[in-house]
Amino acid sequence: MQIKLDRTSKTPVYLQIKNQIRGMIYNGILTPGTQLPPERKLAQSLGINRSTVLTAYRELKADGLVDSHVGRGTVVLPVLSQVSEKYDSMEIPAFHQFFSLAAERTNDPLLNDLLRMANQQNTISFSAGISSLDTDPVECLEGIEKELREQPDHYALKHVPTGGLPSLRESITQLMRERGTGVKPEEIMVLSGSQQGIFLTAQAFLDLGDVVIVEEPSFFSALHVFQAAGARIIGVPVDEDGMKVDVLEQLLRRHHPKLIYTMPTYQNPSGVSMSLERRRRLLELAYREKILILEDDPYGELRYEGPRLPTLFELDSYGYVIYLSTFSKILFPGIRIGWMAAHQQIIHQMIMLKQINDLHANSISQWIVDRFLRKGGYHEHIQRLCKDYGEKRDLMAESLMAHPVEGLEWTKPLGGFYFWCRLPDNLPHMSLLVNAQENGVSYVPGTAFYTGGRGGSFIRLNFTYPSKEKIPLGVKRLTQAIEATARRAPIRFEGEFEEMLPIV
Amino acid sequence: MQIKLDRTSKTPVYLQIKNQIRGMIYNGILTPGTQLPPERKLAQSLGINRSTVLTAYRELKADGLVDSHVGRGTVVLPVLSQVSEKYDSMEIPAFHQFFSLAAERTNDPLLNDLLRMANQQNTISFSAGISSLDTDPVECLEGIEKELREQPDHYALKHVPTGGLPSLRESITQLMRERGTGVKPEEIMVLSGSQQGIFLTAQAFLDLGDVVIVEEPSFFSALHVFQAAGARIIGVPVDEDGMKVDVLEQLLRRHHPKLIYTMPTYQNPSGVSMSLERRRRLLELAYREKILILEDDPYGELRYEGPRLPTLFELDSYGYVIYLSTFSKILFPGIRIGWMAAHQQIIHQMIMLKQINDLHANSISQWIVDRFLRKGGYHEHIQRLCKDYGEKRDLMAESLMAHPVEGLEWTKPLGGFYFWCRLPDNLPHMSLLVNAQENGVSYVPGTAFYTGGRGGSFIRLNFTYPSKEKIPLGVKRLTQAIEATARRAPIRFEGEFEEMLPIV
Repeated sequence: MQIKLDRTSKTPVYLQIKNQIRGMIYNGILTPGTQLPPERKLAQSLGINRSTVLTAYRELKADGLVDSHVGRGTVVLPVLSQVSEKYDSMEIPAFHQFFSLAAERTNDPLLNDLLRMANQQNTISFSAGISSLDTDPVECLEGIEKELREQPDHYALKHVPTGGLPSLRESITQLMRERGTGVKPEEIMVLSGSQQGIFLTAQAFLDLGDVVIVEEPSFFSALHVFQAAGARIIGVPVDEDGMKVDVLEQLLRRHHPKLIYTMPTYQNPSGVSMSLERRRRLLELAYREKILILEDDPYGELRYEGPRLPTLFELDSYGYVIYLSTFSKILFPGIRIGWMAAHQQIIHQMIMLKQINDLHANSISQWIVDRFLRKGGYHEHIQRLCKDYGEKRDLMAESLMAHPVEGLEWTKPLGGFYFWCRLPDNLPHMSLLVNAQENGVSYVPGTAFYTGGRGGSFIRLNFTYPSKEKIPLGVKRLTQAIEATARRAPIRFEGEFEEMLPIV
Repeated sequence: MQIKLDRTSKTPVYLQIKNQIRGMIYNGILTPGTQLPPERKLAQSLGINRSTVLTAYRELKADGLVDSHVGRGTVVLPVLSQVSEKYDSMEIPAFHQFFSLAAERTNDPLLNDLLRMANQQNTISFSAGISSLDTDPVECLEGIEKELREQPDHYALKHVPTGGLPSLRESITQLMRERGTGVKPEEIMVLSGSQQGIFLTAQAFLDLGDVVIVEEPSFFSALHVFQAAGARIIGVPVDEDGMKVDVLEQLLRRHHPKLIYTMPTYQNPSGVSMSLERRRRLLELAYREKILILEDDPYGELRYEGPRLPTLFELDSYGYVIYLSTFSKILFPGIRIGWMAAHQQIIHQMIMLKQINDLHANSISQWIVDRFLRKGGYHEHIQRLCKDYGEKRDLMAESLMAHPVEGLEWTKPLGGFYFWCRLPDNLPHMSLLVNAQENGVSYVPGTAFYTGGRGGSFIRLNFTYPSKEKIPLGVKRLTQAIEATARRAPIRFEGEFEEMLPIV
């Protein structure tokens, strides 16, 4: 046990000792049962008074971190073990009787179960929805510590307005202008991730029983938000040109939707993009029927092939489109910074709602994103991502071709994160989930992207997170699992387990 | 204009030039109208080919950052000026007709108006609810850059589980144990600020028309959440021993509340703490009537005088208390990390709700807080804060005594952030707000802490944000404004304006 004293510090010596021992206990350097050096000995070795060490040990004992007995000296206790049960279980109320209707509508355990299953060591993950560690632009953090510590007004540590750090709102404005959309900073708000934008939009526009149109399949977390809001969700099928707008038109007559939720570019999960013609037609329908559109665009920049299509937001001149995008797929998944662009009247209302929700997105992340945009590395970083992810996409396509399975259908996406595969007919899809897991590969089953338990004949495969070495192996494991499931044969895993999966 | 080329970089030279000029335009170093050096000249001075500079200039032009004309050279454009109006205002729908009932219930412009008024230069702010810059523990950021960049798994940049970074959940568990509450990590969840805990609690438990009991006065952002949820809010008066539990008991018979929201320690805004006897009585009533309690405890650690009182959560054995606290008042206001402690069944439901709300709190802030707690500087930092804020509190009390105003009543709080003052009878409180503002001092009017426009005879003064130099001057300006308002006299400001206020 090594303790270093700083005699120039304002912190009393006994506290320095206590803090360092405490740190070693937390960090597992001092494990439970370890004997601390006798007070006299430690005092001698540090050249201090014994009573100082005594005080440090006494405080550690009061904090429940060590115990001392005559004859045994001072011993480290297990960090959390001696917590007795706080609650008297005989008297605990039936909490579920207290929950609101919104809470009841939020109990979809599927995703959590999947994550628990997938989140075991050594599975090759095609189930994540995240970028890979290799492409994280950690170099953009250069200099942040000095700036954070020396900014005289602690700019990046202070409260910021609910709408966002003003300079980040400007940088995002500039980013959107470069992409061809002339917005003003007041038409932008910063979000704590774009998930929050879906949530706030539901809060702002949906009353119980309102109808929301979604693509079928659609992003599961959006479905969960609309379910929790008590909306009626109507799905419109998707083909290779995106949402089938002719079907939508028929549905509009029957239902009177309040909102259309769409991911027109490199859709999650189907990978398809809505054609320009359909984009124009969708807007016409929205104008005619007075329906707002929530355009979710997390993947638009990740284009590997084919032309860039204008966003609905870009095409809209009347304010019917609320646009969402995010930096979580581009910078770091954990940074949780997204944004909304919409007519100023809508942004104003959203800011009111965000204020009671979480006051504002944390300042440090906003500042890091702003700094990144202003330093000008953004476009090159996107180019780098597109190159890397494009290669991974090709690799997954090649791997799928190298292991052909009768009846398995898929198309190569032009951008985004996912392959959407149709399973062979009549494959028992719950068995496949178990078999794939046992064979060391994970994916997200199609049921997650539909309401009402449909979608079992599809699976979603992500190709951006796994490394290039893992993609062919994972595809092999997956196709083995599909074939075994089709034959109703048990699976026998022969690979080696290697990888720890982060939560999606 | 100085450009530095890095010949070892993988970034092409033209992009290096483009990025640096772009940065200078964003940062205002190159102002609109500035002429860029002629291509040939810049190429010469950098020792590169003219076509490289040409490419850089062409891209800047394509991005709308510069323009070039024969004879005039290349000129910097105003950064946002050439954005034409995106919307055709004749065709914009009446957005307010689209908003939900929840959105309509969220339109309380008071706070925004106040912030706009207070947020002008040179006002001395007693209206903030934040810590002062001087006490920000920026030294806790030492080493973060190296760690962030070199962590092999990018631990602090990745997704984390919705319930929080596992090691932070453990650290918070440990912190609560040190304060005397034996909880387990599963009974803790990390929040994107404690405001989110109020919001999630309302989501989890309140249906339209449910009754919520609050203290009167009460924290405005909690009132806004309950209003937006469509709850009926019933206030229970507060005296020097906190919520009047005898009044509560009578109200319980008449209404059947679902939830009691209380800030028992150093309450915002009244500054008072609930006595131990009343805490016990409150719990008995909650058990008897089966009502959950939301205990908000942002200030409990900021104790300047008097004994520490146990939290309701500590006293509760049956799981009726949901506990909230935050690091925003202790570390940095912009870090937006708080936590909830409650029975595991409640935490489980809250995590489901948080998942659709914002997926998880950003990883970097969680990691910074965890690192701070594990390094062991937390307790000393609290001691430092208590010393500094205790002195500021005394100074505000002295200043108020030095400028006595007939009929103005206040008591010195034993902890927390605020003085709660009763104004002289019949003072026109809206005039005072204007007069104080004109005299260069801001506060929060009592009406913010009540429902239904009551509370006009009170004001809340914060003493932690203003510097020690500003407190006596601010109190002088305030008492002048009160006296002028009482005399119905116009105010004439004679001071100097000095300060820029951050938003609360």
